[in-house]
Amino acid sequence: MTYSVTLLSGGMDSATLAYLLHSQGRQQTFVSVHYGQRHSVELEYAERLAAKLGGEHILIDMAPLAKALSGSALTDPSIEVPDGHYAEASMSDTVVPNRNMIMLAAAGGIAVAQNASCVSTAVHAGDHFVYPDCRPEFVKAMNVALRVATEGFSKEGFHVFAPFMDIGKHDIAELGHELGVKYEETWSCYRGGTVHCGRCGTCVERAEAFTLSGVPDPTIYLDPDYARSVLK
Amino acid sequence: MTYSVTLLSGGMDSATLAYLLHSQGRQQTFVSVHYGQRHSVELEYAERLAAKLGGEHILIDMAPLAKALSGSALTDPSIEVPDGHYAEASMSDTVVPNRNMIMLAAAGGIAVAQNASCVSTAVHAGDHFVYPDCRPEFVKAMNVALRVATEGFSKEGFHVFAPFMDIGKHDIAELGHELGVKYEETWSCYRGGTVHCGRCGTCVERAEAFTLSGVPDPTIYLDPDYARSVLK
Repeated sequence: MTYSVTLLSGGMDSATLAYLLHSQGRQQTFVSVHYGQRHSVELEYAERLAAKLGGEHILIDMAPLAKALSGSALTDPSIEVPDGHYAEASMSDTVVPNRNMIMLAAAGGIAVAQNASCVSTAVHAGDHFVYPDCRPEFVKAMNVALRVATEGFSKEGFHVFAPFMDIGKHDIAELGHELGVKYEETWSCYRGGTVHCGRCGTCVERAEAFTLSGVPDPTIYLDPDYARSVLK
Repeated sequence: MTYSVTLLSGGMDSATLAYLLHSQGRQQTFVSVHYGQRHSVELEYAERLAAKLGGEHILIDMAPLAKALSGSALTDPSIEVPDGHYAEASMSDTVVPNRNMIMLAAAGGIAVAQNASCVSTAVHAGDHFVYPDCRPEFVKAMNVALRVATEGFSKEGFHVFAPFMDIGKHDIAELGHELGVKYEETWSCYRGGTVHCGRCGTCVERAEAFTLSGVPDPTIYLDPDYARSVLK
């Protein structure tokens, strides 16, 4: 049985991944990263989810690193989080350079320290065109790099588990629905706050996933009409 | 002219690398990582070196991550730093899991944010057998992963510059001597303190590099005879 170090953001994708691994009876250690994101409320969602699924939760503070990676609306308070559909060009403002590689590298170190044999990540097909470090080529390259970097530490041979690589967010919602994921216990909105704004890229993407999959959307949006109006 | 984000520990290898790039007239931003190492005095050496060479110095605090990577004598105060030659089995106590990948990933993010086109690292042939993430296969794999992860950010195409990959520490000392590196302005000792202990793995390795290369060793060791007695 493969023991997984699972990257858990508190959003719907990684929550579904955690439920999937849990349903397979795998042991998990959950890793969340505070990188100075303004929507750090997601980390509280991650913590509750980890407790619910019975895995250790490790929160890594990488906020100092984020300062050096300034220029993203996610970490720089002087840049506004843009409204609109995730696919639009403006959303590239939310790219934190190399964020995914940094998180996978950190999770790889934890996996070695804890004798886990895989790092699991919920990157999916919808991420590809905005984030270069979420594409299948990247996951493949990291698979090789992590295996080489951890040789001699793991008996089974180390790998990156990224089961959503070729499916969309609406497929994830459908799978999660079958697995019994409670999506009201997950957080997506980039603006933070107490309810989802309904206008930023991740809110629109979230609403779209529920609409396309036909799964009931339990989310309370501040502007519920906006998300639906920009669906593609 | 390639602009480099250079990993600078404050030790003799990365100091030589910084001088090499400087002698080639390249712009450099220096990145040092505080990962909870007990020899954090090396970071002050790195800071002075960066100022001397006229590059920006970014210090990243990754100490919280190190807690999750416990089990190394470098970060866990409950484990003694072992005496003896670097090559000995006991030195594997000083391995911080995946440290090199984590630092390269962070430097890659900074490189993207700053429009640099390479990340430079001073890993060398002597590191290979203790640290799996310092081997040529690893640097090659990271080269691919970083290129994929940063596609679209860098015009020139991104790469990892690791010119010491196939040479030993004594070759580095010889090169540094030619380049005018002041090795008294570098720090190696894993035990920290005000002078080099002369007994830990890096002190022995440091003394050995000077002896083998014939470069005068300006280091003040607390136990100058020990290092020479275990040379291989």
